[in-house]
Amino acid sequence: MAAENPAFVLRKVKDVAIEQRGVPKLRSDHDVLVHVAQTGICGSDVHYWQRGRIGDFILNSPIILGHESSGTVAEVGPAVKNLKVGDRVTIEPGVPCRRCDYCRQGAYNLCADTVFAATPPWDGTLQKFYPVASDYCYKLPDQMDFEEGAMVEPTAVAVQICKVADLRANQTVLVFGAGPIGVLCQAVAKVYGAKKVVGVDISQSRLEFAKSYGADEIFLPPRLEGDPVEASEKIAAMIKEKCGLGDGADVVLECTGAEPCIQAGVFAARKGGTYVQAGMGKENIVFPITTACIRALTIKGSIRYTTGCYPSAVDLIASGKIDVKRLITNRFRFEEAEQAFELVKASKEGVFKVMIAGVE
Amino acid sequence: MAAENPAFVLRKVKDVAIEQRGVPKLRSDHDVLVHVAQTGICGSDVHYWQRGRIGDFILNSPIILGHESSGTVAEVGPAVKNLKVGDRVTIEPGVPCRRCDYCRQGAYNLCADTVFAATPPWDGTLQKFYPVASDYCYKLPDQMDFEEGAMVEPTAVAVQICKVADLRANQTVLVFGAGPIGVLCQAVAKVYGAKKVVGVDISQSRLEFAKSYGADEIFLPPRLEGDPVEASEKIAAMIKEKCGLGDGADVVLECTGAEPCIQAGVFAARKGGTYVQAGMGKENIVFPITTACIRALTIKGSIRYTTGCYPSAVDLIASGKIDVKRLITNRFRFEEAEQAFELVKASKEGVFKVMIAGVE
Amino acid sequence: MAAENPAFVLRKVKDVAIEQRGVPKLRSDHDVLVHVAQTGICGSDVHYWQRGRIGDFILNSPIILGHESSGTVAEVGPAVKNLKVGDRVTIEPGVPCRRCDYCRQGAYNLCADTVFAATPPWDGTLQKFYPVASDYCYKLPDQMDFEEGAMVEPTAVAVQICKVADLRANQTVLVFGAGPIGVLCQAVAKVYGAKKVVGVDISQSRLEFAKSYGADEIFLPPRLEGDPVEASEKIAAMIKEKCGLGDGADVVLECTGAEPCIQAGVFAARKGGTYVQAGMGKENIVFPITTACIRALTIKGSIRYTTGCYPSAVDLIASGKIDVKRLITNRFRFEEAEQAFELVKASKEGVFKVMIAGVE
Amino acid sequence: MAAENPAFVLRKVKDVAIEQRGVPKLRSDHDVLVHVAQTGICGSDVHYWQRGRIGDFILNSPIILGHESSGTVAEVGPAVKNLKVGDRVTIEPGVPCRRCDYCRQGAYNLCADTVFAATPPWDGTLQKFYPVASDYCYKLPDQMDFEEGAMVEPTAVAVQICKVADLRANQTVLVFGAGPIGVLCQAVAKVYGAKKVVGVDISQSRLEFAKSYGADEIFLPPRLEGDPVEASEKIAAMIKEKCGLGDGADVVLECTGAEPCIQAGVFAARKGGTYVQAGMGKENIVFPITTACIRALTIKGSIRYTTGCYPSAVDLIASGKIDVKRLITNRFRFEEAEQAFELVKASKEGVFKVMIAGVE
Repeated sequence: MAAENPAFVLRKVKDVAIEQRGVPKLRSDHDVLVHVAQTGICGSDVHYWQRGRIGDFILNSPIILGHESSGTVAEVGPAVKNLKVGDRVTIEPGVPCRRCDYCRQGAYNLCADTVFAATPPWDGTLQKFYPVASDYCYKLPDQMDFEEGAMVEPTAVAVQICKVADLRANQTVLVFGAGPIGVLCQAVAKVYGAKKVVGVDISQSRLEFAKSYGADEIFLPPRLEGDPVEASEKIAAMIKEKCGLGDGADVVLECTGAEPCIQAGVFAARKGGTYVQAGMGKENIVFPITTACIRALTIKGSIRYTTGCYPSAVDLIASGKIDVKRLITNRFRFEEAEQAFELVKASKEGVFKVMIAGVE
Repeated sequence: MAAENPAFVLRKVKDVAIEQRGVPKLRSDHDVLVHVAQTGICGSDVHYWQRGRIGDFILNSPIILGHESSGTVAEVGPAVKNLKVGDRVTIEPGVPCRRCDYCRQGAYNLCADTVFAATPPWDGTLQKFYPVASDYCYKLPDQMDFEEGAMVEPTAVAVQICKVADLRANQTVLVFGAGPIGVLCQAVAKVYGAKKVVGVDISQSRLEFAKSYGADEIFLPPRLEGDPVEASEKIAAMIKEKCGLGDGADVVLECTGAEPCIQAGVFAARKGGTYVQAGMGKENIVFPITTACIRALTIKGSIRYTTGCYPSAVDLIASGKIDVKRLITNRFRFEEAEQAFELVKASKEGVFKVMIAGVE
Repeated sequence: MAAENPAFVLRKVKDVAIEQRGVPKLRSDHDVLVHVAQTGICGSDVHYWQRGRIGDFILNSPIILGHESSGTVAEVGPAVKNLKVGDRVTIEPGVPCRRCDYCRQGAYNLCADTVFAATPPWDGTLQKFYPVASDYCYKLPDQMDFEEGAMVEPTAVAVQICKVADLRANQTVLVFGAGPIGVLCQAVAKVYGAKKVVGVDISQSRLEFAKSYGADEIFLPPRLEGDPVEASEKIAAMIKEKCGLGDGADVVLECTGAEPCIQAGVFAARKGGTYVQAGMGKENIVFPITTACIRALTIKGSIRYTTGCYPSAVDLIASGKIDVKRLITNRFRFEEAEQAFELVKASKEGVFKVMIAGVE
Repeated sequence: MAAENPAFVLRKVKDVAIEQRGVPKLRSDHDVLVHVAQTGICGSDVHYWQRGRIGDFILNSPIILGHESSGTVAEVGPAVKNLKVGDRVTIEPGVPCRRCDYCRQGAYNLCADTVFAATPPWDGTLQKFYPVASDYCYKLPDQMDFEEGAMVEPTAVAVQICKVADLRANQTVLVFGAGPIGVLCQAVAKVYGAKKVVGVDISQSRLEFAKSYGADEIFLPPRLEGDPVEASEKIAAMIKEKCGLGDGADVVLECTGAEPCIQAGVFAARKGGTYVQAGMGKENIVFPITTACIRALTIKGSIRYTTGCYPSAVDLIASGKIDVKRLITNRFRFEEAEQAFELVKASKEGVFKVMIAGVE
């Protein structure tokens, strides 16, 4: 008889339920089984729940949700050397194939055969036990609790965005979006020695939080009439002037995916500057390509994480350089998981990061 | 009385004429005066003639046209050490301020105070004598004639595009456009050890030339009905399949500025690949930003040239690695300059690069 | 009963013999078994035979020698997708752990747990059958024979050296050493569009071969009296002057490990240039550190290969850009393996690359 | 009659005196004349005084000493736009030719024709008035005083060292030397988000200062008997173990030029790590080249500063991220300049940075 393993299952679009599943088996001698302690809810979890699809990933059969988790090692495969039962860990949710050219080059975030938690057809971490490769688990220092352990995931996303941007000290950094990823990007940029960090959002309360967190300056763009691209160019000019960015930001991090932000971001980068697309919204948007060309911009896409992101995120939190606890606004028991998802779906002001405790 | 210096002047939009001007004076002790021998006509010259404007550069008073030139040093300033009277040279047409941050960082192509030949308000090289900083003149090896000297300019543009792309040996390179810049990019990529160079254009005859020049494979895209972006994605899939590019090209060089090419180029790049925007067309276009993000592309703009482009272009031609003579299809005397411009304006098949000889 | 698998075994220092071994088993579902066809002899094979040690790798028990091999796939594990029985392949001899930080970053050449053929305690390829991970086998195009397949290994070493050097087109490249690795570096640099390749060696006949292969200029250093470092500096000055390297080479590739070459190489690099240490000799040498500092050199070590080196090497050979057959001077049957090793040990002029055919 | 301009002149080796000189003339329309306010003494000033030579720079005629200075703009050339009379500035002491390949590539620190203050044959800043190119003067924010303005120079040296090291956040950084440049490197690394900064020196008191300044860990190497290189390797092993650097530091910054430190630094770098030589001592030293090769290290030399170093250094000080006032231990009036030099020459414990006030 399989041991008990309650799981929060997305059965089909808009249909979730807690189900009893068997305890997962280790897939390889190098795997560990983690007893999940805390799981943060991410927009993509809600997106699968409501739409059943992100890009090429389509929900064709039930999956367990959740991918931002921490927990305790409950079992280790015979080849595992870096962990032992009882170790407190954070889980990197995507384990790549290790054999394709992307994996072998260190770009495992581009591996087509990654097993990624809560991405169809793969089960996620909102279950009692989750099996994962031991090198994709990272020990939590004593001073970090499980909530902080779960917050390593969005922090690692921000670390990767800053890595893609090749962000250096002494740069000016303009971040669109003051949601969890946006404010974490602002905080990471600040820790990395940015000269000035500017946050842009359409929510005044989020901007105020950003100001208290990692941003030196904040900007709430006004609504402008007329041609949308010209409006975006005007917004960019306002940002540069009001926030002291001179001829433009050295680095622009776009964490919203919103068309006007993308346009304003390109216009607000300095000549020779770098723009990173991290947010996702409409598939195709109107884009100022001639500006990108004439100003010799470098425009890059950021997706998931690469080697070093998780350890760096752990260190940024453990050292106290980034206080992720301040981002957690709501906490739920495992049995209340659907309620937690409903809260995130409602996207009210004041709800920032929502945590679901694991099954004891 | 000023010595004679006939010049081909753009007096106002659509109005050109040969005028007599005084011989230009050296602007600094480091300048030389070049007796111009050959000048190629570039699309931008024709654009100013017909439209009076490119981006922020607006024709407000007459300028002399021409910026792709070679000639003989006729006078040297007292501080000049690298050249002497009688030296045969090619002229880099933009001399930057040398003092702004861009200049001091080696990104002088982004200097806002560059004196660029035939860019308002600066006079160009279609005159008997042209004054220029001595370090922006490069000696022609004996085996290079003046026509080849004039062809250094478009070759240097291609060298810069490949530099921006960080193009390496053993890569697959997809080039949109088989005009002069496109085929030169293909040839440069091939010389640099590209594994495979694919050329795309809408002219079969240009593609055939490309095939005989630097391209390993060529592709003429069919017209597709339906949604334009989806059509571009299908074209990209065809290119990848028919030209053996697997999951996509390592490097895409876009030398047309045409919206469907830009879209197809983004779709045709492999995950983690590089796309360079070198062609200029519409200011804003519909752009597959989510694809760029998810595939972690690097998208860069290329403009003008930087240090090393001219010497490299001279060497590629002098060593016989690139045969620029094959690109020259039409030759005119200085007195026939307007006729030469009319020919380029007509943009007939078979007219590739048009040369105007200097005043003797 | 184990099938027959004759193997060329290094039993202890200076003691080799052909022994009968069982056919090796696949280590994982992703492995293939290769029927070895050709194996080149490398200096390191001879070194282990004569000395029993390279650095931290010490011969404590018998190993099978050989690591530059090609062959035919004889068996595939159940998870193998990229190969099938009968495929002709070249074997990359080091398979890393795939789990350490180096592997995950794409620097698998630095993995401490690599299984590397003929490096104690791991068996090499001089046996009838060799088991290896399927993604470390690369298909040979039809136009490549097994000897060329075995020559992929030293070619991949040269590709990695040029990759470490970040070697670009239009650079001047100075290579110390005209043995197999040296001349392959020269050839690779030339294919990559080097402006000028200079070869240095103490053997006139090797230099003449180099001149006919990839080098534009060659230099045989004279013996100089006096302080050794000053002598090296003088040699560097001679190379720069006689071979037209101006203020120094853009890139220096040191493939000898000899102290005077290392010194001369540092002195011969231009300010801001790159020097790569690929040859290995004495552990510690007298080094012009102040010159390295003041001239802002970049000095890098190159070891083994990384992702892309083998495919690039295959392509360079298959495309005819590099003719590796010219490097093979001597051929032996498997039964004559010891004789082949004796020939390499003697290091006579005229013996370049020695091949041993596999057991049929 | 020339206005008064007292200057501290190095007349010949070991012979300094205050002399009356004429007020210097601007060399170009882009120059400014700075009324010098504060000047720090650097080891190289003392070296010229005592030895008359550093490398190829030889004292053949008297020069004015000093190159770490701040002051007030007293006169501006007609082409100057960025400064006006009365502006408080820090002076970058080397103005390059702007025309050679190094200058045009952004590597102006390698320009052979740089006019560098107090480097023969160029006069330094220890005079009442100093003429300099306006773009090599940087305005001091209101919160910075002239002493801090003079301290921009060593801070900019540290910024350049970290730039050469390509130092990133989340790295472990090992710095040899806890003199002014060493501790500034430690502080800069810390501001840039280093995971751990380790300082090594042979003075306990300097190490204690370093611990209070930018270093997380400090290490005073014991004297070891036996082979010097083996001793260095043991020291490296001790540093790694005692300071928690695991397999080695990501980045090693060598700021002493001492042979044992250079050796230990190479041994203490992790595989694939970066080592920067910034200190200068003996021209040639015994160097573990095989270790550098096998571990695939990147070893770079750092010299002077490049674009962005001065502005970054100003910002690091003005923002309060680095407190340079703590480094200043002794202050002298201009008339006491020789006394100040004697104090630096004596190199007593407790004497860190010595400042000389300008002539009012």
